[in-house]
Amino acid sequence: MKLQIWTIGKTHENYVREGIDVFTKRISNYFAVEWKIIPPVKNAASLTEDELKQREALAVLSLLKKEDYLVLLDERGKQLSSEELALFLQQRANESEKNIIFLIGGAFGVHEDIIKRAQFKWSLSKLVFPHQLVRLMLSEQIYRACTIIKNEKYHHS
Amino acid sequence: MKLQIWTIGKTHENYVREGIDVFTKRISNYFAVEWKIIPPVKNAASLTEDELKQREALAVLSLLKKEDYLVLLDERGKQLSSEELALFLQQRANESEKNIIFLIGGAFGVHEDIIKRAQFKWSLSKLVFPHQLVRLMLSEQIYRACTIIKNEKYHHS
Repeated sequence: MKLQIWTIGKTHENYVREGIDVFTKRISNYFAVEWKIIPPVKNAASLTEDELKQREALAVLSLLKKEDYLVLLDERGKQLSSEELALFLQQRANESEKNIIFLIGGAFGVHEDIIKRAQFKWSLSKLVFPHQLVRLMLSEQIYRACTIIKNEKYHHS
Repeated sequence: MKLQIWTIGKTHENYVREGIDVFTKRISNYFAVEWKIIPPVKNAASLTEDELKQREALAVLSLLKKEDYLVLLDERGKQLSSEELALFLQQRANESEKNIIFLIGGAFGVHEDIIKRAQFKWSLSKLVFPHQLVRLMLSEQIYRACTIIKNEKYHHS
């Protein structure tokens, strides 16, 4: 099973880059893992929020394969504990999913079409975090989930 | 009102240092803000988890003044939205609190005596994050709360 993390626009900011590198490298000991940064929509400033979200959705949906399992990071989604995330990944592997995609949306959220396409909507917290920091939090949690699956020492519940 | 962030042991790891610096500087435009890193307990490896937590608690409690308002970061605490955090800070300022202390405990949690001393127990998420990353998440959320209080542009709800 391969894990992909898709983000919309902007490469990693300095203040998250180093941490993302650390955790991505660690995840790669458990699963193939890949980041995909989807180019931002051009002339975004001339679009309404809704038009922007629609264009972003088109870009994302055109890249998704039918068999991809899409996990949308969404504040209105369901919260998981770290153990539940580990179980979630284990279950996807058990079901022989090939490709799990974690999608972090743009600053204004994502279009309804993506919400409909997602098999799972996951909220990290009641708090709103910047999308750059979400990248770091997500990579750490995926690494943590890997160590929980393997019953390794990193995580203290 | 002054904000302090207290942490137990270890200075900031590289992968969080830059982000913490960015957000701490930004917070300082709204509130006086200060980090205090409490030295780790010596010979920790020879102590049980409970002894370690007790020693840490003694160190923390000896540094607290009676009038300090203690917010404990605690997984079993209450979750807040970013708007609720802003309201919480605003209320503390309205009540003329002088000193708000956000305490991030050690890897094994904190001793019962600190839990009892805390006026508020706050959970960032159902997920468990490393204490280094909690420092970064906390500093970003405090900055975000400041911008919400001032009705500035940073936060999209």
